[in-house]
Amino acid sequence: MAPSTASTAPLSSICQPLLYPRSIALVGASDDVGKTGGRPLQFLRRLGFKGTIYPINPHRAGVQGEKAWPSLSALPEVPEHVFVLSPTDSVVPTVRECADLGVKLVTILASGFSETGAEGVQREAALRTIAKDSGMRILGPSSLGVVNPGNGLMLTANAAFAEPDMPRGNVFVASHSGSMIGALVSRGKARGVGFAGLVSVGSEVDLGIGEICLATLDDPAIEGYVLFLESLRHGDAIQAFAREAAKRGKPVVAYKLGRSSAAAEMAMTHTGALAGEDDIADAFLKDLGVVRVEMLETLFEVFPLARKIPLARQGGKRVGVVTTTGGGAAMVVDQLGIRDVTVQPVSPETLVKLQAAGIPGSAGRVLDLTLAGTRYEVMKKALDILLEAPEFDLVVAVVGSSARFNPDLAVKPIIDSAGHAKPLLAMLVPDAPQALAQLTQAQIPCFRSPEACADAIASVFARRMPGTQAAVRAPGDPARLAALSEARAYELLDTLQVPHAPAVTFDIATPPATLPFDYPVVAKLCSAQIPHKTEVGGVVLGIQDAQQLSEAFATLRRNLHERAPGMECSEVLVQPMRRGLAEVLVGYRVDADAGPVIMLAAGGIWAEVMRDRSIRLAPVSVQRARDMIGEVKMLQTVSGLRGKPRGDLEALAQAIASLSQLALQPALQVSEAEVNPLMVMPEGQGVMAVDALIMKA
Amino acid sequence: MAPSTASTAPLSSICQPLLYPRSIALVGASDDVGKTGGRPLQFLRRLGFKGTIYPINPHRAGVQGEKAWPSLSALPEVPEHVFVLSPTDSVVPTVRECADLGVKLVTILASGFSETGAEGVQREAALRTIAKDSGMRILGPSSLGVVNPGNGLMLTANAAFAEPDMPRGNVFVASHSGSMIGALVSRGKARGVGFAGLVSVGSEVDLGIGEICLATLDDPAIEGYVLFLESLRHGDAIQAFAREAAKRGKPVVAYKLGRSSAAAEMAMTHTGALAGEDDIADAFLKDLGVVRVEMLETLFEVFPLARKIPLARQGGKRVGVVTTTGGGAAMVVDQLGIRDVTVQPVSPETLVKLQAAGIPGSAGRVLDLTLAGTRYEVMKKALDILLEAPEFDLVVAVVGSSARFNPDLAVKPIIDSAGHAKPLLAMLVPDAPQALAQLTQAQIPCFRSPEACADAIASVFARRMPGTQAAVRAPGDPARLAALSEARAYELLDTLQVPHAPAVTFDIATPPATLPFDYPVVAKLCSAQIPHKTEVGGVVLGIQDAQQLSEAFATLRRNLHERAPGMECSEVLVQPMRRGLAEVLVGYRVDADAGPVIMLAAGGIWAEVMRDRSIRLAPVSVQRARDMIGEVKMLQTVSGLRGKPRGDLEALAQAIASLSQLALQPALQVSEAEVNPLMVMPEGQGVMAVDALIMKA
Repeated sequence: MAPSTASTAPLSSICQPLLYPRSIALVGASDDVGKTGGRPLQFLRRLGFKGTIYPINPHRAGVQGEKAWPSLSALPEVPEHVFVLSPTDSVVPTVRECADLGVKLVTILASGFSETGAEGVQREAALRTIAKDSGMRILGPSSLGVVNPGNGLMLTANAAFAEPDMPRGNVFVASHSGSMIGALVSRGKARGVGFAGLVSVGSEVDLGIGEICLATLDDPAIEGYVLFLESLRHGDAIQAFAREAAKRGKPVVAYKLGRSSAAAEMAMTHTGALAGEDDIADAFLKDLGVVRVEMLETLFEVFPLARKIPLARQGGKRVGVVTTTGGGAAMVVDQLGIRDVTVQPVSPETLVKLQAAGIPGSAGRVLDLTLAGTRYEVMKKALDILLEAPEFDLVVAVVGSSARFNPDLAVKPIIDSAGHAKPLLAMLVPDAPQALAQLTQAQIPCFRSPEACADAIASVFARRMPGTQAAVRAPGDPARLAALSEARAYELLDTLQVPHAPAVTFDIATPPATLPFDYPVVAKLCSAQIPHKTEVGGVVLGIQDAQQLSEAFATLRRNLHERAPGMECSEVLVQPMRRGLAEVLVGYRVDADAGPVIMLAAGGIWAEVMRDRSIRLAPVSVQRARDMIGEVKMLQTVSGLRGKPRGDLEALAQAIASLSQLALQPALQVSEAEVNPLMVMPEGQGVMAVDALIMKA
Repeated sequence: MAPSTASTAPLSSICQPLLYPRSIALVGASDDVGKTGGRPLQFLRRLGFKGTIYPINPHRAGVQGEKAWPSLSALPEVPEHVFVLSPTDSVVPTVRECADLGVKLVTILASGFSETGAEGVQREAALRTIAKDSGMRILGPSSLGVVNPGNGLMLTANAAFAEPDMPRGNVFVASHSGSMIGALVSRGKARGVGFAGLVSVGSEVDLGIGEICLATLDDPAIEGYVLFLESLRHGDAIQAFAREAAKRGKPVVAYKLGRSSAAAEMAMTHTGALAGEDDIADAFLKDLGVVRVEMLETLFEVFPLARKIPLARQGGKRVGVVTTTGGGAAMVVDQLGIRDVTVQPVSPETLVKLQAAGIPGSAGRVLDLTLAGTRYEVMKKALDILLEAPEFDLVVAVVGSSARFNPDLAVKPIIDSAGHAKPLLAMLVPDAPQALAQLTQAQIPCFRSPEACADAIASVFARRMPGTQAAVRAPGDPARLAALSEARAYELLDTLQVPHAPAVTFDIATPPATLPFDYPVVAKLCSAQIPHKTEVGGVVLGIQDAQQLSEAFATLRRNLHERAPGMECSEVLVQPMRRGLAEVLVGYRVDADAGPVIMLAAGGIWAEVMRDRSIRLAPVSVQRARDMIGEVKMLQTVSGLRGKPRGDLEALAQAIASLSQLALQPALQVSEAEVNPLMVMPEGQGVMAVDALIMKA
């Protein structure tokens, strides 16, 4: 029975059996409600699920006071959704039976698949085959199930759902971790926040977070999403979902594990490894318009703010703060500052308006009404004036002790002013559960800690409207990639219009008498088989004349013979020595999860010790490339700081955008392109690649 | 009436009238309990304060049903503590009257002193004079009062104290912000955490946080301290207190505002400005053994952990994690990693013990007992084994949904194991108020968010046992400081045994024909009047021979004449050109609040764009200097990374420690000494200052 809220829109073939099944079978339903296998039936009955439920237990005539059926084939109808609660060994035959019967969706609780060795891998492969051949969809294994509080579908074995009074909301939760969906519900409940549904996706042999969320976008009961991610696996599906959610204006919020592992990988220079998996994931999420929060608490609190600032109209980031408690407001200002969000002082024009309205309090960085101004009329007038003030894009009201004892004084005016188009947030300095509940009820972004308040604002500001979608997909086996020689790499850079230093190649046996450019020059072994030339002594720097050039060729021949025996290399590439004001690394890579990404990083030894880089999904526009440049601190040294010469950062932006266009050219089959170093010349003199490594599929 | 808890130790002359007054007068006590002036009497009566209370109100015969006295002089005795609730204008005469009568301590509620202009500054000066002349102590102005729940002393005008059932605890709170003491109480109450007392110090014209806390160290009811700091003002008193608290093993925890302002000051090169006020404050607090937390919530939660790890015995920092929920534990591991705290995997030896004890679950980075292992015996055995395991210095138990529904399963074993000498912490993944209360009651460090859990561990690990105390005090007027010439600066470096490049001086009119070292050399104007030589063209680099040296002298004479007219400069300093593997800045400075500090920073243009530096209170030992070197990322480039040459970091540590000894030599009157750059030569070749600026009082 589909719920009334969804009656107007046809639901997808995944969403319907997942969240609105008309019939459910529970394979392995236990009579013991204390056991995992006994919970779903108990929970479904307790929540009053209206669809048909078939407990299946071949060993008993009844479970929990209901008739138990001996098998799936004995049922009077084909159930839409089967929850397999039985042990690992019996899962594959049961799932095969479901497919044969024409079940639409099977959820598997058991673990013990690919994570447990060869036998488990085989079992998992069998599940994939069944799904592929039959068209039946599989959720799990290791799924703790799915919950839809709107129709009482409490199809889960998570003990956390044992409690009554689960609050309903309009946000759907999809989680890699099954135990976390229980924790999210209890934490949400404590915070007055409910959910429109929750799903534990387990190990995603078939249905994953991206596909499930995409399939639920038509569900009018769902107005936004919370994702709890352990990694970016099935990134393509997450990308498809996030792009569609962005189009429809349904906010997506994510908490992703793995922030710290990247820190451990700082000392690597390879594009991917330097960036670290989490850095790519971070760029991926933000570039797809996902609000990635840093704190668990923010996950519950950020949604009203994300909805208030539509992604498509996300503009200025100037925050105004009004308060009844200077100390409390200072905490918020401090936390925003740490996250590079600027609190804007009140303008002189607005100050005049405030004074004319008889608002007390001084205005420095924040408008402090003080204890004396903790009155409804004062706060209301102040909010009305600040919300109209052109210098603010968002207003935060930080309320002191009165929020706990008398919410009518300074909290009610926030509720009464929240209809304004400009976002208005509340941060409560004391413990003030009642006021928090009132604000939450009114769907006003409200926070009980300065850190979560600042995290919410910063993470909403950090998301970006999705740009052009890449045409390139992740390559197959990374081990099969082949490098281009440096000379061929420059040819590719030429077609992309990424500038490089002049380069000519010569037969390795015959050093040239003359060159088309001046000395000093560099001579390098030029071969697709030797992508890492320096490691075999394949680079000779600082060659001053033809005599030295001839000697360099001899050195290269000797090193090739001694240090790279068996490698084919018939050419030497000669280039003039060039130095820029700064050296950067520009890298393009097709990440297995995130797809094509582009990275700009500080070059040289600093890249090894400083995490000074910016990553985006490729392709990027020149404007986005400019934003990337702004994020790399080292480039401040060539931005005109303290009278130092400026580098040609506009040419750098062009080069980044140009290289990133590889993402739109699947025919080129480039999976990695690293220009390192790219020399940034003085303003007006462009940029220049002096080495490049390109890997093709 | 002094409380029984304090009956055995004599209390200080500040602590006694502040927290245990036998009699109180409330000047300006109002009949209206809704008014600020009416609150203290109401609160004191409600809490059953046993001392004598004299409401004073010249306009009424009674207030709140009690006799009101017309004036202080009309009282039958001299009250020990007077709380002045009357308006700003009447404060000075009232305080003078208190001093004349022999009152021990006056607390002033009114604001409107030095923050409000000339008249206010005069009023404040008058208060200082009264305190100095009479010996009477003053708390405030702008103090919201003081609270001692142990004896019902609710001497505050903060409305937040209106509620009953204020929990008692053993931690004393001192706050710059008056509104925050109310917020701290309500937040603590919600968390089951009470306080031994709270004081709002206001603008600290006389008594400040440091002096008050020092004065309460003998109070046996107080076992630790929480400081809410807006700045480091009166740093010397805070230092004296923190050193004494460290000696006595009473933990001090601080939340300090101003972290973000430092970020805005990144682009400055001056030692002090580069460091930023908050960076100095951070080094100050940590060097004094103070636990500086980053999150407000941690302020309530960290105390049991700080007490469990005595500062004097603070050793290893290896964290072990055991959990019933993989997703929940991963959040904690991630947050610890971000804060550079490493989670140690279970050793093979410990794994054998766990297996022998029949503990299920796999051991990777954490010991995951899974849902199946969520049983009392399993968790208890696992904890006992981990607490005995030599690879861990601290164990965190991350408990999943069972914490909410059945604390007996995995929370009770934590309580039962907490007697072990090794610290054991609990982090609860669901909302589990009951379990949290049980753990809090048992004084076990427990946390409700992964961020606060990690913040607590990282901030306790970050504090350091106070080192040698400086003998140098902050100088007087910074405008009166005078620079030494570079030549004199080198003489001082010689006495301190900080190595520098050879240098000889010559009369500016007569360039030398020969030098005691080889070319190339640098020639610099050498004068105490020209501390910033480059700004006037006072440095000529890359001089190759005697002819060029002669020309350089001419250039310097011309620049002196044209760009520094009127400056006395009779000498030129000549030095060989020297380059190291790395350039650093070593700066010593007597900070007005923190006292002598020593800083090591990356040199050159990177200092301007990267916050790559380490600060400590001076003096530092060579070992502490080594720790500082470990904190400067740039120095990783000369630490043998990836086969690159090593710099002489041991010589650098010696030089840092040597320069920092200035803190023990008040007779030298050095208030700033900046060696910039100090060249770090290859291993075994030492370090070498090639410029130095020293300012004396």
